[in-house]
Amino acid sequence: MSPASDRPDPEPPLVLLDTAPQPVGRIFTPDTRATFEQRFRVVDCGGDPDRFDALLPEAFAVVGQTDLPAARLERATRLRAVLNVEGNFYPNVDYPTAFARGVRVLGCGPAYAQAVAEYALGLALDLARGISREDRAFRAGRERYLGDGNADAVLLRGADVGLIGLGNLGRALLPLLAPFRPRVRVFDPWLPDAVLAEAGVEPAGLDQVLGDSRFVFVLAAVTSENSEGGRLLDAAALDRLPAGARVVFVSRAAMTDYDALLDRVEAGRFLAAVDVWPDEPVPADARARRLEGLVLSAHRAGGIPAAFAEIGELVLDDLTLLARALPPVRMQPAAPELVGRYRNRPAG
Amino acid sequence: MSPASDRPDPEPPLVLLDTAPQPVGRIFTPDTRATFEQRFRVVDCGGDPDRFDALLPEAFAVVGQTDLPAARLERATRLRAVLNVEGNFYPNVDYPTAFARGVRVLGCGPAYAQAVAEYALGLALDLARGISREDRAFRAGRERYLGDGNADAVLLRGADVGLIGLGNLGRALLPLLAPFRPRVRVFDPWLPDAVLAEAGVEPAGLDQVLGDSRFVFVLAAVTSENSEGGRLLDAAALDRLPAGARVVFVSRAAMTDYDALLDRVEAGRFLAAVDVWPDEPVPADARARRLEGLVLSAHRAGGIPAAFAEIGELVLDDLTLLARALPPVRMQPAAPELVGRYRNRPAG
Amino acid sequence: MSPASDRPDPEPPLVLLDTAPQPVGRIFTPDTRATFEQRFRVVDCGGDPDRFDALLPEAFAVVGQTDLPAARLERATRLRAVLNVEGNFYPNVDYPTAFARGVRVLGCGPAYAQAVAEYALGLALDLARGISREDRAFRAGRERYLGDGNADAVLLRGADVGLIGLGNLGRALLPLLAPFRPRVRVFDPWLPDAVLAEAGVEPAGLDQVLGDSRFVFVLAAVTSENSEGGRLLDAAALDRLPAGARVVFVSRAAMTDYDALLDRVEAGRFLAAVDVWPDEPVPADARARRLEGLVLSAHRAGGIPAAFAEIGELVLDDLTLLARALPPVRMQPAAPELVGRYRNRPAG
Amino acid sequence: MSPASDRPDPEPPLVLLDTAPQPVGRIFTPDTRATFEQRFRVVDCGGDPDRFDALLPEAFAVVGQTDLPAARLERATRLRAVLNVEGNFYPNVDYPTAFARGVRVLGCGPAYAQAVAEYALGLALDLARGISREDRAFRAGRERYLGDGNADAVLLRGADVGLIGLGNLGRALLPLLAPFRPRVRVFDPWLPDAVLAEAGVEPAGLDQVLGDSRFVFVLAAVTSENSEGGRLLDAAALDRLPAGARVVFVSRAAMTDYDALLDRVEAGRFLAAVDVWPDEPVPADARARRLEGLVLSAHRAGGIPAAFAEIGELVLDDLTLLARALPPVRMQPAAPELVGRYRNRPAG
Repeated sequence: MSPASDRPDPEPPLVLLDTAPQPVGRIFTPDTRATFEQRFRVVDCGGDPDRFDALLPEAFAVVGQTDLPAARLERATRLRAVLNVEGNFYPNVDYPTAFARGVRVLGCGPAYAQAVAEYALGLALDLARGISREDRAFRAGRERYLGDGNADAVLLRGADVGLIGLGNLGRALLPLLAPFRPRVRVFDPWLPDAVLAEAGVEPAGLDQVLGDSRFVFVLAAVTSENSEGGRLLDAAALDRLPAGARVVFVSRAAMTDYDALLDRVEAGRFLAAVDVWPDEPVPADARARRLEGLVLSAHRAGGIPAAFAEIGELVLDDLTLLARALPPVRMQPAAPELVGRYRNRPAG
Repeated sequence: MSPASDRPDPEPPLVLLDTAPQPVGRIFTPDTRATFEQRFRVVDCGGDPDRFDALLPEAFAVVGQTDLPAARLERATRLRAVLNVEGNFYPNVDYPTAFARGVRVLGCGPAYAQAVAEYALGLALDLARGISREDRAFRAGRERYLGDGNADAVLLRGADVGLIGLGNLGRALLPLLAPFRPRVRVFDPWLPDAVLAEAGVEPAGLDQVLGDSRFVFVLAAVTSENSEGGRLLDAAALDRLPAGARVVFVSRAAMTDYDALLDRVEAGRFLAAVDVWPDEPVPADARARRLEGLVLSAHRAGGIPAAFAEIGELVLDDLTLLARALPPVRMQPAAPELVGRYRNRPAG
Repeated sequence: MSPASDRPDPEPPLVLLDTAPQPVGRIFTPDTRATFEQRFRVVDCGGDPDRFDALLPEAFAVVGQTDLPAARLERATRLRAVLNVEGNFYPNVDYPTAFARGVRVLGCGPAYAQAVAEYALGLALDLARGISREDRAFRAGRERYLGDGNADAVLLRGADVGLIGLGNLGRALLPLLAPFRPRVRVFDPWLPDAVLAEAGVEPAGLDQVLGDSRFVFVLAAVTSENSEGGRLLDAAALDRLPAGARVVFVSRAAMTDYDALLDRVEAGRFLAAVDVWPDEPVPADARARRLEGLVLSAHRAGGIPAAFAEIGELVLDDLTLLARALPPVRMQPAAPELVGRYRNRPAG
Repeated sequence: MSPASDRPDPEPPLVLLDTAPQPVGRIFTPDTRATFEQRFRVVDCGGDPDRFDALLPEAFAVVGQTDLPAARLERATRLRAVLNVEGNFYPNVDYPTAFARGVRVLGCGPAYAQAVAEYALGLALDLARGISREDRAFRAGRERYLGDGNADAVLLRGADVGLIGLGNLGRALLPLLAPFRPRVRVFDPWLPDAVLAEAGVEPAGLDQVLGDSRFVFVLAAVTSENSEGGRLLDAAALDRLPAGARVVFVSRAAMTDYDALLDRVEAGRFLAAVDVWPDEPVPADARARRLEGLVLSAHRAGGIPAAFAEIGELVLDDLTLLARALPPVRMQPAAPELVGRYRNRPAG
C-alpha cells in the first residue's frame, strides 16, 4: 500500500497526462510543472492512446479527459484518481465502475469560479450604469454629461438580486455581492433551504427570483431537467422579469430561449449581458450584434490565464495529498448522484 | 433657545431653499418633500435674492449654494446651518465668520460616494477583463471566443491596488474591494498612518502606490497643492505605473496631466478609464475618442438618480436633528482647516 | 498664520500637558513621547496652575482636563485645540466660547471603544454559555459534563440582539457581532433611521429592543434625559425583557435601576453581566456578590493598557495634523449641540 | 432504481434509527420528526438488533452508530447511506465495503462546529480579559476597579493568533475572528498552502504557530500520528509558547501532555482554557481545580441544545436529497483516506 504512508515513496507515483483540448503548457506554469515532475513520474500521453493503454496498469492517476470505459478502468489496477482539467464532468467515464473501485474522480470547476464571478459582477455593473453603452456613444461623439446620461442608472447597493443556481459560481459571486448589502434570493432545487440560509440568502422559487429581482444572475449547470425537459428560462419565465431588470448570463446557454431573450431586450423590456450563446461562433448577421440593450461577450467569463494556471495548481495539490493518502481538498469530486444528469458539452 | 428642546417647536423653523444648479425636484422626492414641509417652514428662494435677503434674519437654515459673505451672515442672527447640495465646498461662503457664529456648514459629498464607488469598481472590472472593448469587437464581427480574447485579462482577487486619496470616495470603495482580498496601498497626505491601518490598508508614498499597483484609483480632491502647485500625476508620475496597469480616474481632472496620460494609453503602456476631463464637453476631434486602451465616460460617476434623491434625505435628516438641537450625522461638516484649500469648481 | 503651512514651523508649537488623573506615562509610551517631544514643545503643567496660566497665552494646544472657563480661554490667544484624555466631555470647559474662538475640543472616547466592545462580546458569550458560572462549579467539584451543563446554553448565531445606543461603543461592537449574523435592533434617539440602516441594523423603540432581544447591550451615554429625567431602564423596562435574556451593562450606571435589575437576576428572570455600578467600590455585603445569574466586573471594560497607550497616539496624531493646519481625524470632536447634555462623572 | 427519480416514491424509503447514545428526542425536535415521518418510513431500532437485522435488507438508510461490518453491509442491498449522529467517525463500520457498494457514509461534525467556535471565542476573550478570574475575585470581595485589575488584559484586535487544525471547527472559528483583524497562522498538515491562503490565513509549521502566537486554539482531530506516535503538544512544544500566551483547548485531549500543560499554567508561563481532559470526569483532587491561570470547562463546547437539534435537521435534509437522488450537502462525508486514521473515542 505504498501511497498510504506519509513517507516519500521510493518510486514516485505514475501520472498520465492527456489534457487536450487544454495545452499542457497553459495549465502548468513552469514552476508548477517543475514541482509536479519532482513529486511524480509524469508522462504526457496526449494523442497517443497506445502509450496511454500501455502505462495505464501502473498509473496512480490520470490527468485529463481520456475516455475511461469500464474495460479500461478494470485494467487500471493501481489507479486512485482521475482529474479532469475542464470545468465540467462529461459522460466519457464509467463513473459507477470508478466509484466502486475507489477511484476518485475530480473536476476543476473551482478553478474558473473566481474568474466567472468577477466577470459576472463586472457585467452587472456595466448593465447598472451603462458603461459599455456610453463608451460607445462617447466614441461616436454622442456622449451625455453628468446626470444626462444616467437616467436609467441604478445602484447595486440594497438591490433585489436573484441567483439561478448556487454552485461553484454562485458561491464565488456571493462574497463579491455582500458589501452591496443586496437582498439575495436564490433558486436552486438541489439545495435545502438551510444551506441557502447559511449562505445568507433567501430560498425562493424560480418565479419569485425572476419576478422580484432587479439583477438576475444565471449560473446554473445544464441538466436533462432544465434543457431537454423544457427550457428553464422560456418566454413565459422571461416575462416575469420586472421592467428595467439587468440579467447576466454566464452559464451554458441550453436552458434559455434565446429568441425570446433577444426579443425582450430589443423591445427594451430589460437589459442583458450574454457570455454564452446557443451557437458559437455567433452568426455574422445575428441581430444580437446590433442591440443597444445588450452587453456582448464571447464565452470569455472563465478562460483567463489565471484560471488556467490555477487548474495546474489544483491538480498538483490534490495529487500530492492523494499520494500521501489524504483526501483531495481543492478540486470538485464528481457526485455519484449527479454524473448521470449533466448535459454539458465540451467548450472547445 | 427654541431649538434646544426635544419638544416640537410651536412655529416650525424657517428653511430657505436655493438649490441651483440642482432642481429642487431632483433632490427632494415627493415623499421627502412632504416630510420636509411637515417639519419645517420651507421657502424656495431660487432665483430671487431679494426674497432670500428679506427672510434671512428669520432663517434657521439655508439649503443650497447661496453666496454667504460676512455681511449676510451677520444679518442671519437665527441661522444654525448652511447645507449645500453639491458634492464640494466652494469659496462663496465666509467660513470663518460662519464658524465663529456657530453656524454648521454641511456638504452632501457622502450622497455621491456609493454611486462613485460602484462605478469605479465597474470601470476597474471593465479594464481587468476588456468588457467594453470586446463588446465593441463583437458588434464589429471581430469577437474572439474563450481564451483567445483573454490574453490580457486579469483577476482583481489578490491584486495590488493603489488608492490616491481616502476620503468619502475611497471609504466607500474599500468595502467593495474587500472580498477580492487585494493588497491595498493608499497615498493620502492628510491622514496619519494609524487611520489607514485601521481601514485595513497600507500607508504608502505616491511613488510606491503608482509603482507597485496593478489597479490604481484616483479619488483625491483637488487642492492648491496638487493642482496649481504642480500636477500630482504628471508625466514622471505616470511613468512609474507598471506595464499593463489599469487606472481609474473618477475625481477631478486638474491634478493629472492628460496629454501625458493619453500618450501612455495610446502607446499601450497601461489601460485607463476616464470619467473626468480637463475640458467638458470633450472636443469632438479629441484623440481620446479613438483610443482602444481607454474606457470613456462623460462625468457620470456620481450623478445618478439614487444619489440625487439621497441628497434630499441627508438634508432632511440632518435638519431634523439640528432642529432638535442634536448634531448632524449624515452630511459632511466643512473642516475649518480645509475650506481654504479646496480648488473645486462647480460641475455644472 | 504659522500653523496654516505644511512646512515645519521654525519654533515647534507649545503643548501644555495636564493629564491627571491619567499619569502621563500611562498614556504616552516612551516611543510616542519621543515623537511628541520631537514635533512639539511639550510642557507638563500637572499640578502647577501658575505655570499653566503663565504659558497659556503661547499655547497651541492643551492636553488634559484643565478647567477652561471663558476668562482663561480669552487669554489663550494662540490656542487651537483642547484634547482631553478621558473618555467623556466634562462641564469644566466653556464650550461656546471655545467654539466661537475656533478652538477644537477633542475627546478620546474612541481609544476605549475596541476594548469595551471586545469585553462586551466576551461578557455576552460568558452569559450565553455559562463560562464563569461553570468554571466556579468546576472549582467546587460540581462540574457537569457534556450536555448536562448546557441546558440553558444558547448560540449567538442568528440571535435577536438589541443595542441601546449606537455611539463609539456600539459602532465598535457591531463588526464583532456581524459574523454571528444576528438580527440587530437598535434604540438610539439621536440617530435617524437611515444611519442605523446603513449600519446594517434595524431602528427600534426601546420597548421593542427590550422585548424582542435575547441579547441586550446597554451602551448609551448618560444624559439629563435618561438619568435625571427618569431612569431609562427602570423596573417596567426591565420587565419587558424575555425570560432567559442575557443583558450586558458596560455603560454608565445612572440610567438603570439597579435594585430592580438585581431583583430580576436573583429571581432567575434573566442573566446579566455588570461592569458599572451605582456606587464604586461596591459595598462589601452587596447581594450582587452572591447572585449566580450575574457576571461581576469592576468597571474594567475600557481601561486596559492598550487603550491607554492609544490615547497618547490619538493625541499625537491629531496634534500633528492640527499643526499642519489639517483637520483632526482620530479623536472625537465635542458636538456643540451635545456638550450641555452629558451627565458623565469622572471615572476616577 | 427507485431513488433515481425526482418524483415522490410511492412507498417512502425505509430509514432505520439507532441513535444511542443520543436520545432520539434530543436530536429530532417534534417539527423535524414530523417532517421526517412524512417523507420516510422511520423505524426506531434502538436497542433491538434483531429488528435492525430483519429490516436491514429493505433499508434505504441507517441513522446512528450501529456496527456495520462487511457481512451486515452485504445484506443491506438497498442501503444508500449511513448517517451517524455523533461528531466523529468510529471504527465500527467497514468503510471500504461501504464505499465499494456505493453507500454514502456521513457524519454530523458540522452540527457542532458553530457551538464550539462560539465557545472557543468566549474562552479566548475570557483569557484575554480575566473575566471569570475577576468575577471570582469580586465574589470574594477582592475586586480591583478600573485599570487596577487590567494589568495583563490584552486586545484580540490585531493579535497574532495560531490555529492547530483547520477542519470544521477552525473553519467555523475563522469568520468569528475576522473582525478582530488578527494575523492568523495555521498548522494543518492535511491541507495545501493554497487552501490556507484562500481562507485568509498563513500556513505555518507547528513551532512557528506556537512560538509566534499570543492566542492559540487547539482544534485538531486526534489521529494515530499526533497521539499514539508521540503527543503533538508535549512539554517541548508547550515551551515554545510566548510568555503570557492564551491557549484554548477544545479538541480531544490525547494530543496534549496535560501534566506539562498544568505545570506551565501553575508557573504562570501562560493562561489556558481547557474543555477536554485526559480523564473525564476529572478526579476530585486534581490540581487543575485550583489553578488561577485556568478557565475550567467540563467538555461543554459542542453539546448544546441548538447543536443537537441541528443534527436532526442535517440528517433530514441530506436524507431528503438522497431520496431524490441528489448528493448530500450538509453532513460531512467520510473520506476514504481518513477513516483508518482517526483515533476518536465516543464522548459518552
